[in-house]
Amino acid sequence: MSSQNTIATLPPDEPLELLLVRTDAQRLAHRLPQRASPLRLVELQSDGAVHLRGRELAPSEFRPHAAWLSLEVFTQGLLERFVSLLDGAAGLHWLHTVHAGLDLPVYARLHSRKVRISRSHAQAPAMAEFVLAHVLAVFQEHERIRAAQLEQRWMPHPFRELAASRWLVVGLGHAGLAIARRARACGAVIAGITRRPMHDPVFELVVPPGRMVAELPRSDVVVLACPLTNETRGLVGRPFLAAMKEDAILVNIARGGLVDEAALLEALDAGRPARAILDVTQTEPLPAEHPLWRHERVRLTAHNAYAGSGTPPRNDDLFIENLRRYLAHERLLHEVTAI
Amino acid sequence: MSSQNTIATLPPDEPLELLLVRTDAQRLAHRLPQRASPLRLVELQSDGAVHLRGRELAPSEFRPHAAWLSLEVFTQGLLERFVSLLDGAAGLHWLHTVHAGLDLPVYARLHSRKVRISRSHAQAPAMAEFVLAHVLAVFQEHERIRAAQLEQRWMPHPFRELAASRWLVVGLGHAGLAIARRARACGAVIAGITRRPMHDPVFELVVPPGRMVAELPRSDVVVLACPLTNETRGLVGRPFLAAMKEDAILVNIARGGLVDEAALLEALDAGRPARAILDVTQTEPLPAEHPLWRHERVRLTAHNAYAGSGTPPRNDDLFIENLRRYLAHERLLHEVTAI
Repeated sequence: MSSQNTIATLPPDEPLELLLVRTDAQRLAHRLPQRASPLRLVELQSDGAVHLRGRELAPSEFRPHAAWLSLEVFTQGLLERFVSLLDGAAGLHWLHTVHAGLDLPVYARLHSRKVRISRSHAQAPAMAEFVLAHVLAVFQEHERIRAAQLEQRWMPHPFRELAASRWLVVGLGHAGLAIARRARACGAVIAGITRRPMHDPVFELVVPPGRMVAELPRSDVVVLACPLTNETRGLVGRPFLAAMKEDAILVNIARGGLVDEAALLEALDAGRPARAILDVTQTEPLPAEHPLWRHERVRLTAHNAYAGSGTPPRNDDLFIENLRRYLAHERLLHEVTAI
Repeated sequence: MSSQNTIATLPPDEPLELLLVRTDAQRLAHRLPQRASPLRLVELQSDGAVHLRGRELAPSEFRPHAAWLSLEVFTQGLLERFVSLLDGAAGLHWLHTVHAGLDLPVYARLHSRKVRISRSHAQAPAMAEFVLAHVLAVFQEHERIRAAQLEQRWMPHPFRELAASRWLVVGLGHAGLAIARRARACGAVIAGITRRPMHDPVFELVVPPGRMVAELPRSDVVVLACPLTNETRGLVGRPFLAAMKEDAILVNIARGGLVDEAALLEALDAGRPARAILDVTQTEPLPAEHPLWRHERVRLTAHNAYAGSGTPPRNDDLFIENLRRYLAHERLLHEVTAI
């Protein structure tokens, strides 16, 4: 575990080159911090070319000090290109990324090169709403009541409440906390799993990973919101699933690699848990022939829980604030200390 | 407006007859308060007969002091019978009801006879979850993402967030407050409409009914949670609907009579508001030929928002507590002071 590394940021009168996607540069031009030597924006075009002041850069001219790996990198299909640029940027001091989970191998490479990395939690509110929406829809059997409407059936329909249900939130980063707060506001009782000690009144109890399986038999909703690491890969395997309640819901908004998908399919077939809500899968996009698509107890979305309408503006705000802090030699928000 | 009326409750050594549904009596027998002269349970059978100590009562022998109009009255189809028993119970002092809205005419008749009436708010958490679930499902287009899954389509899907959406909650009783608190926990900004002054940090502002229409043009979600009275009947008519945002959602969990259904259908056809979530209709059950069933912008449920799994136990707890208070001459919870 290292703290902020010791590479100094540049004095305000020296040029600073910032690598970012061209559309981000255009949108944020008016919000960039002013300094004696203006920022030089190294703009990644949608075709993969890199421009500075309207001219394509040769590889030898490319030496950014800072970079922003934004949502646009993904939506424009530029991830592979961006990663290769980062790997080739010898003078890189700082990367700000929209990722919350840093399991892409490039992050470990940058970290070992002592590049500072700050990450985003802009997606946490969206993820929390995603989880809340899907759990409520299952508890209230939305598909069944919609079918009743389509058949003009006035159908009494008692439903399961979130109030007094027990949730187990695995991983108490920003997403886990945001989920816990919303479920608690609905009267749910929340247990949290995290390695570090934590005291927050939103939780009835917080226990370390070693006590997770013991909590499963009384948990109505189990939400995976933890990083994918060597310790967590395949976390949800046969013993985990066998310890769940029959009417429990498993929600994965974190990483597909946390779940042994073959074991999950077997468990769902056997009736325990009752439902899996999966926003992520081991292979993405999930191949059309994969049985998770068609299992009646699975609700599957396309790595989409982050994609709330507030995520892009929250990402912009956080990047701009961290850029200001970087230039002012202040502490970065959400800087990563270990990978 | 009267405060508690002056009919004294009975001393503990005098018999007290309590009218309730037989299944309620059976379930709660072990929870009834002890007193010198035990409670005499006048039990309404599912066939409409009234029994005391296992023997059917003749009308002349029927003189309950207190009554509980429970959920079972509805689920067993006994409402009409129960109301006629209340109307014929000359010595009735107190009625506890599961209703929150007291627009059934019997309540006004009892109130004018100076029968004390206490009501329930046990359904408020269920109603709040119902509203939250349906609004989230609309914002996240659950039907569209479910269709994508059924076609094995890995579909990116940006969605509208509750966070920073503006809600207008009309009526700040227990249901309105429960809704406001949950939406606020998701980051929504809440305005409330109520006649009485109210200060609660959950609201950005609270304004009287006269300022309601002025709030509509900026409200993303409008929830009707107010009583049906002469003032509120047809509240949602053409002027109200014309003032709403195009992408707004109207939610009615209160009473069908609040909405001019012809005007609503016209407004939905014209594209404003975007969606109506109706748990109640003017005629219930809604006739199969009614166009609300089939309108693509309507999500309709069968007066079901109250029917959360926690509502029956919360109702039992409240009734038992109020019975204890009644016998102890303490202040009743949720006693009605005006109808």
